Amino acid sequence: MMSERPSAPRFQRLALIGCGLMGGSFALALRKAQLVGHIAGFSASEKTRQRALALNVIDQACNSVAEAVAQADLILLAVPVGAMHGSFAALREAMQPHALLMDVGSTKCDVVAAAQATLGERLSCFVPAHPIAGKEVAGIEHAESTLYQDRRTVLTPLPQTNMQRLRAAHDVWVAIGSHVSTMTPEAHDSTFAAVSHLPHLLAFAAVNALVAQPQSNALLEMAGPGFRDFSRIAASDAAVWRDILSANQTEVLKQISHFRTALAQFENALKQGDTSDLQQLIQQASEVRSGWSLQAGDAGQIASDT
Amino acid sequence: MMSERPSAPRFQRLALIGCGLMGGSFALALRKAQLVGHIAGFSASEKTRQRALALNVIDQACNSVAEAVAQADLILLAVPVGAMHGSFAALREAMQPHALLMDVGSTKCDVVAAAQATLGERLSCFVPAHPIAGKEVAGIEHAESTLYQDRRTVLTPLPQTNMQRLRAAHDVWVAIGSHVSTMTPEAHDSTFAAVSHLPHLLAFAAVNALVAQPQSNALLEMAGPGFRDFSRIAASDAAVWRDILSANQTEVLKQISHFRTALAQFENALKQGDTSDLQQLIQQASEVRSGWSLQAGDAGQIASDT
Repeated sequence: MMSERPSAPRFQRLALIGCGLMGGSFALALRKAQLVGHIAGFSASEKTRQRALALNVIDQACNSVAEAVAQADLILLAVPVGAMHGSFAALREAMQPHALLMDVGSTKCDVVAAAQATLGERLSCFVPAHPIAGKEVAGIEHAESTLYQDRRTVLTPLPQTNMQRLRAAHDVWVAIGSHVSTMTPEAHDSTFAAVSHLPHLLAFAAVNALVAQPQSNALLEMAGPGFRDFSRIAASDAAVWRDILSANQTEVLKQISHFRTALAQFENALKQGDTSDLQQLIQQASEVRSGWSLQAGDAGQIASDT
Repeated sequence: MMSERPSAPRFQRLALIGCGLMGGSFALALRKAQLVGHIAGFSASEKTRQRALALNVIDQACNSVAEAVAQADLILLAVPVGAMHGSFAALREAMQPHALLMDVGSTKCDVVAAAQATLGERLSCFVPAHPIAGKEVAGIEHAESTLYQDRRTVLTPLPQTNMQRLRAAHDVWVAIGSHVSTMTPEAHDSTFAAVSHLPHLLAFAAVNALVAQPQSNALLEMAGPGFRDFSRIAASDAAVWRDILSANQTEVLKQISHFRTALAQFENALKQGDTSDLQQLIQQASEVRSGWSLQAGDAGQIASDT
């Protein structure tokens, strides 16, 4: 009798396009789960490629996207979302028709649009993916095999996505410990504008508001553990977040507008000295936040959610 | 020869006015450091008094502020800042002239004004104190002797403050592991409006902005570890934070204004599609936050900074 547990797909060759924290962690997780034979890596930076090789994250450093993907049955695009279009264009002709192609971008509508504009008949191979994991530090040296464990991964398949590819994508993320959800690219981007992109933007703006004050050093010296946690995500990578916020501009602007409304309620209650209104506003936030907990595991202490 | 290490003051009797997280933790810390003989506690709630007694945080539950402070050589006011005025008025006639009187309020100008309006000649006994510690959960059952360890405590003495009282206050906080700073009440309130009160208000407003959206439950389900840490302080106690924000209204409104300016810079960069400007704004925040670390110890994972 066959086992009823879904068997994780095994891949001959992973092509890792972008050898940073996210891609490196995926490679390490696959290797640890014995799901992959050979890992070929490409990074725009020669130095990064060599570091990935030296750290044994990849088995082979390739000089081009085309070389990396040529014989791969699994391709992971782990580049900033602004570099997706160019990467798709570079791999389209070189990739194998049976390969599974995924990205790990934090926005999905723009990545899907880039795929639709470039991939042609290979579009069916593509399963857009967003693992809700990360750290506020970037780079291959911070990669770890457990980054995606007990984290959520959102897949946003297209009408053209091949069902077998979608199933394989689901199984590989589950096999490395992730909890998989599926939604449309549009729902993804509006959801994460609210729960991730806006909080990052607010944390960036809060730090900048401090820096703009002449006594900012003295202020920062007095900041405590509340500030530490509130502002942790403000240490995130600037290039990564420039791309995320730009790519999801419309939804982020909508969320800023929602936030401004909520902020104005506090400002009005304060200006009018309406302590009853003020308490109600705080009470609502406090009750909702006290009743909330991270759905897909709560193991990591320093994880970000790019 | 005398030891050169400052000896921690020993107290016969601590009067704890307010038996919650902050006061209870102070009592436990003093007891553990063997700095106090007897602890008399008063709380407006009979139930809370009895719980503090049952948990051995206090040795005696008193029926009034006057009864608690009558024979005390150390008095700690650990009530919401809105209840300070009434507490000062209730203890003035009953307290001993040699006692050291401190509070643990998160705002100082309003507490100082209340003291000046009520304490009369006992004003010299009063050393306003703000330990930068706490949790986002309230109540005596969460009190712990290590709450103030490796945390900063700010003292804001008045011109009338007796120097021996100030020295004793300094020594007792140091003896329970705290790092003591001194500043004026005004500097305290403008500093903490920036590094604590504004972040709390922004976290409250961010949660309320989510709640105001029809699909808020689905949004919250997708929130990740970045949101978890960013919004942790939004779970703080509503009555406590109503009082803090109200008491420090002017400085908090100034900080909201600074924040609005920083937020507008992001909004403009996004609207204009100015990715270079956007990256610079993020880069500034990221560099400052990456270079920052908690000055006075970083032991607690769940500490707040009321």
